[in-house]
Parts: sequence; C-alpha cells; structure tokens
Amino acid sequence: MPDRHLPGTLYAERLGRLQELIVAAEAEAFLCLPGTNFHYLTGLNPGRSERLIALLVPAEGHPELVAPAFERERLVHNRMFAEVRSWDEDENPFRLVADRLSKPRTRARTVVLEATTDVVTSARLARADDRLDLVPDEEVMDALRSRKSAAELALLRHAIRITHDAREEVVKGLKPGTTEAEAAEALTAALTARSGEPAWALAQFAAGASVPHGAPGQRRLAKGDVVLLDCGTSFGGYQGDITRTFVFGGEPAGEVKKVMQIVKKAHDAAVAEAGPGVPCEDVDEAARKVIEKSGYGEFFTHRTGHGLGMDVHEAPYLVKGNRRRLSAGNVVTVEPGIYLPGKFGVRHENDVVVTEAGAEVMVEK
Amino acid sequence: MPDRHLPGTLYAERLGRLQELIVAAEAEAFLCLPGTNFHYLTGLNPGRSERLIALLVPAEGHPELVAPAFERERLVHNRMFAEVRSWDEDENPFRLVADRLSKPRTRARTVVLEATTDVVTSARLARADDRLDLVPDEEVMDALRSRKSAAELALLRHAIRITHDAREEVVKGLKPGTTEAEAAEALTAALTARSGEPAWALAQFAAGASVPHGAPGQRRLAKGDVVLLDCGTSFGGYQGDITRTFVFGGEPAGEVKKVMQIVKKAHDAAVAEAGPGVPCEDVDEAARKVIEKSGYGEFFTHRTGHGLGMDVHEAPYLVKGNRRRLSAGNVVTVEPGIYLPGKFGVRHENDVVVTEAGAEVMVEK
Repeated sequence: MPDRHLPGTLYAERLGRLQELIVAAEAEAFLCLPGTNFHYLTGLNPGRSERLIALLVPAEGHPELVAPAFERERLVHNRMFAEVRSWDEDENPFRLVADRLSKPRTRARTVVLEATTDVVTSARLARADDRLDLVPDEEVMDALRSRKSAAELALLRHAIRITHDAREEVVKGLKPGTTEAEAAEALTAALTARSGEPAWALAQFAAGASVPHGAPGQRRLAKGDVVLLDCGTSFGGYQGDITRTFVFGGEPAGEVKKVMQIVKKAHDAAVAEAGPGVPCEDVDEAARKVIEKSGYGEFFTHRTGHGLGMDVHEAPYLVKGNRRRLSAGNVVTVEPGIYLPGKFGVRHENDVVVTEAGAEVMVEK
Repeated sequence: MPDRHLPGTLYAERLGRLQELIVAAEAEAFLCLPGTNFHYLTGLNPGRSERLIALLVPAEGHPELVAPAFERERLVHNRMFAEVRSWDEDENPFRLVADRLSKPRTRARTVVLEATTDVVTSARLARADDRLDLVPDEEVMDALRSRKSAAELALLRHAIRITHDAREEVVKGLKPGTTEAEAAEALTAALTARSGEPAWALAQFAAGASVPHGAPGQRRLAKGDVVLLDCGTSFGGYQGDITRTFVFGGEPAGEVKKVMQIVKKAHDAAVAEAGPGVPCEDVDEAARKVIEKSGYGEFFTHRTGHGLGMDVHEAPYLVKGNRRRLSAGNVVTVEPGIYLPGKFGVRHENDVVVTEAGAEVMVEK
C-alpha cells in the first residue's frame, strides 16, 4: 500500500511548475480559491465559503495565502507559507488581494483566475482595482494536473484496486430481491471501509441500466437481470472509477451477449488507439466506430471517457472535437456503452494510463 | 414533524418572484447553474460538473432547462419544465444557451449570472455571443431566499430541534478520555440518524476551544474541561446550526464562569437588538459592545452571525459595515464568542427568526 500522503516537498515543486506556466501565459500572477486546484497546489483543503481564502502565486517569488484573521491559526499550522495576509471580519478582502497584487516587485496586471472562481469574486476584485486584467484559466492547471507523476500513479492504482475489490465483494452478496438503492449503498460502504475516504456508486438493474447516470431506485434484482455497477473511491485523494456489466445468476445470451461483446471490443479499440501524441477525439472515434459499424451507434450517447486524478472528471476529455493530444502520464477513463431504452444498458469502463509506448489499463480485473 | 418535501407548486411561485426581480434589475434573463440556488428554484439538485446544466429564466414566459442529452431523462422525470433544450456531447452548450437567450421574444442582452457561476462558464458564454452583458448576481437570490415562508420556518425549526436533541444525547455519553475527533464523529452520527440528511460537527475541549473553527483533534476529555460543541444537520434541506459551551463534569468557576456569563449577555443583547428595519451591523454592535465593555473585545474575533436556510452560511451577515436592514422572515445565527489563546474558548449560538415585532430564538434548549 502506498503512503497516502505525498511528500511535503511536492507542493513547492508544483508551485514552481505553476510559476513557469504563469510566465509562459504572459501573466504576472495566479489566484486560486479553495477547491481541488488549491488542494493540489498546497496540500490544504479548507473548503470554500463566503469568507475569502485565496492563494496568490506571483510569477516570481513566494506565494502568499490570504485568509480570514480568525481562521489563520488553523490554516497555517505546520505549512509552507512564509507569508500569510489576513483580513478582519469588517475589512474588504478584495482590497487586500488587490494591494498584494500591486506590490512593487510584482505589479501584476494580468492575473489568471483559477477556473472555478465565481463571478462575484471576480467582479469584486475588479472593483478593488480596475487596472487588473482578470483571465479565467482554461489551460494552466489542466496542463499541470493531467501529467501524473509516479507517486500519483501509485495512489491511483491503489484506489482502482480497492474499487475492484469492493465491487467483487458486493457482487458475491447480491441476492434476488436486492434493490438498486441497497446495492449502491452496500457498494459505497464497502468502498469507504477499504479506503477510509469518500466513495460513490451507481447500481442499475435490467431496464434501469438503460438510462446513463440514472439514480439507483427501488427496482429489485431478479435472476437473469443485466447488472451495471459504476463506482469509485479515492485513496490519498486520487480517484478510482470503474464500471462492469454482467448478468446476475447466469451467462449472457442473445442480444445482451452481443451488446456486451461489441462494448468490450469498442473499449479495447479505444485503449489500443490511445498513446502519446494521439488526439483525444481519435480515441473517442476508435470506440465509436466499432459501435457504429455494429448498428448500435445511436445508442452510444456519451463521450468515450474523461481524465481521472484528484477529480473523478477532469481534463483531458475523450470527446469528438477535442484535438488536444494525449501525453505520457495522462490518466483517462475508457468507458463506451450501449443503452437500449426500456431493455437494458451495458458499459465497460477501465482507467488507462498513457505511457511512452502507448496506453495500459490500470489494474484489470 | 413537518413534511420534508415542500409542495411542488412552490417552485412556480419562486420562479414568478424571481421574474419580478429580473424586471426590477432591468435585466432580460437569469442564468442559474446547479447548486443551492438551482435547488431552491427547481427542487432539483443535479450536482455541478464539467457538463453544462443551466436553468434559463427569462423576465417573461417559461423557464427552460439546458442539459446534456444523455442525462435528459434523469433530469426531467416528473418535473415542471415545459421546455428542455439538450445538447449532445460534441456540441457547444454555450452556443445553445446564447441561441435560447437571443430568441425573438426575449432578445436578452443583460443576463444576470447566479453568484456561484464560474468565470470559465461566463467567458465561454461571452464568446458564444459578444452582445450579451453578463452581470453577477449580488442581490436577487439573496432577496428571494432570505425571506423565509411559514413552511420554510417549520423545516428550520425541526432541523434545529433535531440538532439540540442529538447534541443532548451525545453529551450524556461523553466520558473522560473521549477525544475531540470521537465526540465530533458521535455527534455527526447522532444528527444524521435523526435527520436522515447530511450533518457536521465541531468538538473542542479546553485549550482546543480557543481556536475558532479549529479541527477536532486527538485531545482527550478530562473532568473540568471546557467543552465547545458546534453542530448541525438539515431537514428537508434546511439547516440547523447551534453551539453550546459547558464544563464537563462540573460547574463553571473563575474566569470560565465570568466569560460564559459575558458571552451569554452579548448573545441576549444581539437578540434583543434584532428586528425588522434594524441594520445588520447594529446587531453585531450590540453583542460586541457587551464584550468590549467587559475588557475581552480583542478576543471576539469574528462577526456575530450569518443568515441560515438551505445553506449553513447565507445572507444576511451580521457584521460591521453591513448596513442592510433585517426584515420579517429573515433567519440568522447569533453566535458571539470569546477565545483566550492557550486557555479556553466560549461561544453561544442560537438561530433567530426576525418577526414583525422583533426577533425570537428558534427552539431554545
């Protein structure tokens, strides 16, 4: 089992790489509110509230943390910030941020805003200093986060292994009469018990599986039902995300068997297509072509996959129109599916790492 | 016990009031992404992801839901939207939103963006139609949500009652040696068991209580310790939020007793001050004056309170500088505190409803 905690030195390294990207974007600073990106950069995950907490990363020099004065102690405990700038409850924190951005050495004009920054924060910051040019980040953090290190890959592999093991345990306990909601709850509990971290699960039976992302309901399991289980948990904050479809208490036959074979073939074609330098949309196309040729094209209604890391869905996205090229260290899901309304649905999902040579399924079971 | 589900007709009523406010703001439409405001307006809580789901509310006429085609079925099931506009995975959803906003009857130019809209969504929408004037909402939803109806007050009262009952149950089970983390976990479990909804808890002992919002740690309870418990759960989506401070296995004495009396007096002064037409900052000032006069002013490091409803923290905020006036139907927390570093901390928090005549503590225990 890998150490759940990445080494503290990692964060200084990530911030250094961020600073290179700030320079490359011809900006002077990056502003990051709490959320996954903040967590990735600092190891801290303070939650977002109406009280401004922000990481200010200048293109050069030391990052600063802006935080409410009364929460200062809980935030800076044992951490790397040389500078914490705190604001009192009756002060305007946006004025403080603007002041820090205009200090002589930085004189920031172009400030990149982390992608999930809200429009009110952006407007208030603009009002605090109308010389600031605030630019939403659509690239920088994706570029940083989508290239996984060996340590990150080890955490992902462990999360995926746990996800497989928990699902196999729950599948053994399925009984005729179990509801979708009960199966999803059992899966979530089994995942969290193994990971000690948050988990989620979808369980869909028979015609219930024909709605992608449908909520598990009161449908009861019967022998011969198609069962679709999509679930995941994190380990050290890195997510697993796996889907399997099978027939309960029997072997696939007829159209179910045929569709399962097509979906698996589409999955395998996408994995074979993936590799460094390959455009994301080509991987989607590889899976889609298999399904279209089989005559089920209209029933594959979603993209082929998404990036996987600290978020369950993150860049890069395997979707038509996305010309971005994969590179070694990217981790993506490959999850084609066919959903026949009112009948059944089949999805087969693995998590795949792009290597120097091609792409590999991480922990196949 | 009130019905956890508000009547379906409520949402049409809320949307109607929103439309009046859109007109008053001289805008032509309101755009709302998933989150608490979306939930408040529609009863739906689909979660926010990288795939655009948006509620478009024109100043006149029927709201529309924009959603991914493959999730359409799960979103529109049994709901009030006459119009659902769906986009396929390889389409630009911002183009679709811009098209809907420019339809002949609406011809929206000024579009109010729900406050938590992210800057990337805003930028992509602006790129889809550069004639749109996108204005972050800093008032409209607050105005709607801060005035609670009788049905909302009934849900809040029930959430608060549950919060009190769960805390009292857990307090009875506290033993010497219990850690802060164990106490917080027991509280969270007791709250969720009673409400069937998410819950949260802070438990701080002795010097641990001297850090506001400090995370519960491995400190073990001993006889005579000051114990600060701040917790809450929701019922029907409406939140309770209560703090109590007491001495474990004994009676308050010395400085602890003195500080507890001052904090209670500050709490009572704020509740007495609150009422319709009273500026929020005056309520803060009423509590602060009591603590300052007692010589502990520098140790009351946070605002006196915040609005309470579907979010644990929402408008209006009881803080110096906030001249907004309270009105009947507002629900706010009143929670002064004194935190003596390295010694102990005391906070006393109740949830208070503003009435036509003044203000009342909701469920005092």
